[in-house]
Amino acid sequence: MAYQREEATSSEMRHDWLADRWVIMAPQRTQRPSDYVVGPPRELGNENCPFCEGREEHTPPAVASYSSPRAAISRTAKSCAAASGAVATAAWSVRVVPNKFPAVSAAVPSLAVSAGGGLALAVDSCQSFGLPQTSSADDSASAQSSIDLFRRRDLTGGHEVIVESPHHWHSISQLDHEATCLVFTAYRDRLQHWLDDLGLAYGVVFKNVGLDAGASLVHTHSQLIATDIMPPDIARAAERMELFARKESACLFCRMAEDELEQQVRVVEQTPAFVAFCPFASRLPSQITILPKRHQTRFQALGNAELEQLAWLTHRLVRRIEHCYPDAAYNFIIHTSPNRLASPDCFHWRIELFPRITKVAGFEWGSDCYINPVAPESAAAALRTAGV
Amino acid sequence: MAYQREEATSSEMRHDWLADRWVIMAPQRTQRPSDYVVGPPRELGNENCPFCEGREEHTPPAVASYSSPRAAISRTAKSCAAASGAVATAAWSVRVVPNKFPAVSAAVPSLAVSAGGGLALAVDSCQSFGLPQTSSADDSASAQSSIDLFRRRDLTGGHEVIVESPHHWHSISQLDHEATCLVFTAYRDRLQHWLDDLGLAYGVVFKNVGLDAGASLVHTHSQLIATDIMPPDIARAAERMELFARKESACLFCRMAEDELEQQVRVVEQTPAFVAFCPFASRLPSQITILPKRHQTRFQALGNAELEQLAWLTHRLVRRIEHCYPDAAYNFIIHTSPNRLASPDCFHWRIELFPRITKVAGFEWGSDCYINPVAPESAAAALRTAGV
Repeated sequence: MAYQREEATSSEMRHDWLADRWVIMAPQRTQRPSDYVVGPPRELGNENCPFCEGREEHTPPAVASYSSPRAAISRTAKSCAAASGAVATAAWSVRVVPNKFPAVSAAVPSLAVSAGGGLALAVDSCQSFGLPQTSSADDSASAQSSIDLFRRRDLTGGHEVIVESPHHWHSISQLDHEATCLVFTAYRDRLQHWLDDLGLAYGVVFKNVGLDAGASLVHTHSQLIATDIMPPDIARAAERMELFARKESACLFCRMAEDELEQQVRVVEQTPAFVAFCPFASRLPSQITILPKRHQTRFQALGNAELEQLAWLTHRLVRRIEHCYPDAAYNFIIHTSPNRLASPDCFHWRIELFPRITKVAGFEWGSDCYINPVAPESAAAALRTAGV
Repeated sequence: MAYQREEATSSEMRHDWLADRWVIMAPQRTQRPSDYVVGPPRELGNENCPFCEGREEHTPPAVASYSSPRAAISRTAKSCAAASGAVATAAWSVRVVPNKFPAVSAAVPSLAVSAGGGLALAVDSCQSFGLPQTSSADDSASAQSSIDLFRRRDLTGGHEVIVESPHHWHSISQLDHEATCLVFTAYRDRLQHWLDDLGLAYGVVFKNVGLDAGASLVHTHSQLIATDIMPPDIARAAERMELFARKESACLFCRMAEDELEQQVRVVEQTPAFVAFCPFASRLPSQITILPKRHQTRFQALGNAELEQLAWLTHRLVRRIEHCYPDAAYNFIIHTSPNRLASPDCFHWRIELFPRITKVAGFEWGSDCYINPVAPESAAAALRTAGV
C-alpha cells in the first residue's frame, strides 16, 4: 500500500525514484531560531545568542569542550582570548553540542552522548541500508515485486554543532591561530567519534557562514552530520576514485595535486603538506579545493603538526575570500572517507571552500550542469594577490 | 599535455572527472547588466530596462514575436494589454531574442537566427558528443590512453530570452490569460525550433524570478538553452524512466499521476489534462510538479486546447506560491524529452515549479542529499487553501 502521511513531526528519509536519491524531511527544523529576517542579516546581541559564553544552558549539554592544551597545540584558550583582545576570559574556547533542531533524528536518543548504547543500532541500520543507492542493482534485487514510489525509512545518525568561540564573532577569520587549531582538533575528534568509534557509514563537517550559505545563526560555528547511509553522490565519488586508481595505478587527487603544482595557474597557496587551488572544472566562482599532498584517506588521521598547518592555511584562504568578496557568505566542507568502501585505500580526503556569490538558477536545477561566470584561473589569480 | 589557460573570454565546457559531469565556463556573463545590487532588488525604470517596449534596439533582433491571434488563442495582444489595464498598446505581446550574454556560445553565429546555416554543424557536434557522460563506458573506450584531468570542449547551442510582456512587470502572475497563452506558445515554438527542427541533443525552458532564483533582470522573462550534449543528470533521468518501463510495463510518471490522484494528499490542483502536486521526495519546500495525465513525451506536442489549460494552471500555481510566500523568488523548468534517447517513448515530460525560500547549505553541497524542512503534504495543503 502506498504510504500516506498528513504531516511529519520528525525526520524521515524519502526516496526519489527518478533521481535515485534520498531526501531528508526535517519539518522540526522550521522551529529553530534565526538571526536572519527578510533582508540583510540582523545580528543578535550577546543576550540572545545561544552560542555565547554564559548562555550554555540554551544548548544541550556539551559532548566535548576545548579549553586546555592538547598535544602539539600548547597554548591555552585563555591566552587565545587575550591575544584576540577579548576582555573576558572564557571557560571554554570551542564547545561541541548536539544540534537542538537536528536534521537527522537520533533513533537512539543516547546515541549522541553515549557510544555504547547507540552502536549496535547504528550498525544494524548500516547493514540494511549501507549500499549506495546509485546503481540499478538495488532495484534488480527486488525485481519480483512492484516498484514502490513512496519508499521511506528512518535515519539514524547524529547532528552536532561546533561552537568555535565563546565570543560573538562571525567568521573563523576572527579567531587567532591557537583557537583555529582547537576548532580543527574538534573536527578531528568528532569525526573519529562518529566514523571510527561508532562506525556510521558517512560523516561530514561543514560550515555555513552568512544567509546565502544557509546559516541561520551569526555566531561562528560549524556542524557535523553523521548518517547510517552513504549519500549516492559520495558513493559515486568513491567509485570514481577507485576507477581512476584501477586505470592509472595512481590516486586521482595525488595526480591532481601534482598537476596543479606543476602548472601553477590555479594554485592559490601551499604549505609543505597541503596545496589549495581553484579546481579546473569549478562549478562555482572562486571555489577552492584543499588537498593533502601525500595520499591520506581520512581527515581524522591528521597528526598535530599537519593539523596546525591546515588550520593556518584554511584561515588564510578564508581571509583571501573575504578580501575579494567583502561580507560574502561562504561554505566549507570536509570530505573524509566514508566507511565500508569496497576499496577504502583509493579515497583521498579533501576540503572544499567557496564563497556564495552566484545563485543556483533554473538551468542548473533543471540539468545539474553549472554555469560558472569566473574562470578558475582568474579566480586563483585574484585570490593569490588578495591581502591577508 | 595538460591544458592551461590564463583567462577565458568565451564559453567552454570543462569536465569534472570526479563527478563525471561538465561545467560551463562563461566568463563573458560577468558583463551582463543587473537590476540587483547588494541588498534588496532595485527596480529599473522603463527608461533603462532593455526588455521594455520602445527599447527593442537594446537587445539583438527578435527571432520570434507574438502579437496576433494564433490558432486557438484567438484574442489579440492589443486586447491583452487593454484587459490588463495598460495604457499604451504594444506592437508585440511576447518577444524572443538571442541572449546578449549567452551562457552557451553559438559556434556558428548564424545558428541563433538561421536554421539552415547552423544545422549541419549542430548535428555534427551532437554526433561527437551526444552520448551521456555518466557511464564509465566513455572512459573504457579510451582505456589505452591516460586519463585527462583537464578535458575541455566547445559548446554549440543557443541561449534565448523570452520577454513575456512589453510592460515592466515582474511576474507571470501579472499577465492575463491570453498573454500567458502566448508565452506558452513561444515556449512550444522555440523548443520545436531547437529540438525538432535543428535536432540539438537537449533543450530546456526555465524561468528565474527574483535575485534568490538567479534572475539578473526584474522584467518578466524566461530563457531557453539548447545544447549539443545531453547533461548527465538528464541522461540519468531518461535511463530511470526506461528502467521503470521495463520493470513495470508502465510509465513512471503516468503511474505517479495516478497514485497522487488516488491518494489526494499532495495534489494542489488539476485540470482535465494536467495534475499538479508536491512530489513525495521534494528536495525543496513547496516544490510542485505538473504532469500531463496522459502519456506524452514532448512538451512541443501539446495541442492548443491543452496549452491553454497548462497556461491557466501554471498561472494559478504561481499565484498560490506568491500568496503563501509574498515576494518569494521562484523557478520554473520545462523538462521535455531530449533527442536521441535509446527508448524515446519512455520519457514523460513535466514542469517543475518551486519558490526559493531555503538556501542550499554546506551539507547539501557536500552530499547532494537535501534537507527539506517542509513536508510535501503540509506544503500541498497550504498551497491548496491559498487564495487565487
